[in-house]
Amino acid sequence: MAETYKLTYFNLRALAEPIRLIFAYAGVEYEDVRIEREQWPEQKENYPWGQLPVLQVGDKTLCQSNTIGRFLARKFNLAGEDEWESAKIDELVDALTDLRSEWRKFFMEQDETKKAELKKAFVETAVPKYFGKFEAQIASNNGGPYLVGKNLTWVDIQTAHFLEFFEVSKPGLLDSYTALKKLRETVFENDKIKAWLEKRPVTQF
Amino acid sequence: MAETYKLTYFNLRALAEPIRLIFAYAGVEYEDVRIEREQWPEQKENYPWGQLPVLQVGDKTLCQSNTIGRFLARKFNLAGEDEWESAKIDELVDALTDLRSEWRKFFMEQDETKKAELKKAFVETAVPKYFGKFEAQIASNNGGPYLVGKNLTWVDIQTAHFLEFFEVSKPGLLDSYTALKKLRETVFENDKIKAWLEKRPVTQF
Ligand SMILES: N[C@@H](CCC(=O)N[C@@H](CS)C(=O)NCC(=O)O)C(=O)O
Ligand SMILES: N[C@@H](CCC(=O)N[C@@H](CS)C(=O)NCC(=O)O)C(=O)O
Repeated sequence: MAETYKLTYFNLRALAEPIRLIFAYAGVEYEDVRIEREQWPEQKENYPWGQLPVLQVGDKTLCQSNTIGRFLARKFNLAGEDEWESAKIDELVDALTDLRSEWRKFFMEQDETKKAELKKAFVETAVPKYFGKFEAQIASNNGGPYLVGKNLTWVDIQTAHFLEFFEVSKPGLLDSYTALKKLRETVFENDKIKAWLEKRPVTQF
Repeated sequence: MAETYKLTYFNLRALAEPIRLIFAYAGVEYEDVRIEREQWPEQKENYPWGQLPVLQVGDKTLCQSNTIGRFLARKFNLAGEDEWESAKIDELVDALTDLRSEWRKFFMEQDETKKAELKKAFVETAVPKYFGKFEAQIASNNGGPYLVGKNLTWVDIQTAHFLEFFEVSKPGLLDSYTALKKLRETVFENDKIKAWLEKRPVTQF
C-alpha cells in the first residue's frame, strides 16, 4: 500500500513550500493542511517541537523543514546519484539555511532603524556572498542549469523557492545573477511544478 | 586505497568537535588542522564559504558542520538502520542546531543588559523546552540510552558534545536531565572516544 502523507504548516509558502514543490515534482499525493494563525496558540502543544512544518507519514511524525525535504527527496530519487552528490546537496541546503538566518535577522527586528541596517547588510553583503557562490557552483557543474549533478535535485527546488522568497523583500534582487535566474526558470517551468504554482493559494510569503 | 581526510577548523571544539568525535569513534585517521585566529583573515578567502569547518576528502572539499557529520556518519554506519531512523536523526540534529542559534543570540550580544536577558531566555526557556523533548525522545526509544534505534549514532555524539558545550555557559545546566546525563556518559565513556578526550587540545569552547 502506498504511504499516506499529511503536511501541516501555516497558510504561507516559507518553510513548507519546498516540501510542497517536491511533492508536486514527484507527482505524489499528500494532504496540504494549513493552520490559521488564530488557531495556532491552542494547537501548538499538539506538535512535537511546538513548531511547523510537520509531516505525517502514515502514523509516524517527522519535523524540521530540511529533514522533511531530504527524507522525501531520498524516497523520490531527488537526492543525488551517489553519496558525494547527496553531501554536496546537503552543503548547499545548509548554506541556504545560513542565508535564511541572515534574512530572519532583519525580518524579525522591531526597531525601524536597526531593521533598515540589517536589511542593508542582508542585501549588500550576505546576498552577494551567497548568490555569488551559488552562481559559481552552477558554473562548475558543467555550466548548469542544475546545482549538483546532471538532473534536478531537491536543492534546485529549495534554491528556486528561496530566491523567489527573498525577492519579495527586495524586487530585482536577482537581476545580476543569470545562472540563478536560469535555475529558477528551469525549476518553475517544469510542467508539474507549473501546474502547482498555478493552483496554489496566493500568500505574501 | 583508503580515503584521506583533512579537517580544518579553529583551535576550538565548537562546530568541529562532533566531527572529530565521529572520527574517534569510528577509529578512522584524519588530519586535524587548527588555524590560529590571527592567521584567519588572510586565509578566509581560500575556503569555499569563507567559513570553517571544512573537510577535505582526497582532493574534494565538503563544508557545513552538519553536512560533514552526516556524510561521515553514513560512511561509518552511524546514521541509523533504515531511512526512518536516518530521518529522525536528522530531525534531532536540526533541533539541536535551532537550540544552538538561541545560544548564539546571547553569546554574540555585545550589550551587557541585553546579553543577560538573552542568556536568561536561553537557560530558562529554550533549554527546558529542547532538553525536555530530548529526554522524552530517549524515554520513547526503549528507555535509552540512545536517542534513535538500538545503537549509538551520530546524533548521540552531537548531543553529548553540545550538552557539554552549553554547560560551559551555565554549570549545572544538565542537573535535572537524567536521561541526557546518562547519554553523555555513555558516549564519553566509550573507549575510543575516551582516548580522544584524554589527548585532545584543551580549549574553552
Ligand atoms: N528549524 C525549523 C524552524 C521551524 C519554525 O521556525 N517554524 C515557525 C514557522 S516558520 C513556527 O512554527 N512558528 C510558530 C511558533 O514557533 O509558535 C524548521 O526548519 O522546520
Ligand atoms: N553553518 C555553518 C556555520 C559555520 C561558522 O559559523 N563558522 C564560524 C566558526 S564557528 C567561522 O568560520 N567564522 C569565521 C568567519 O566567519 O570569518 C556550519 O555549521 O559549518
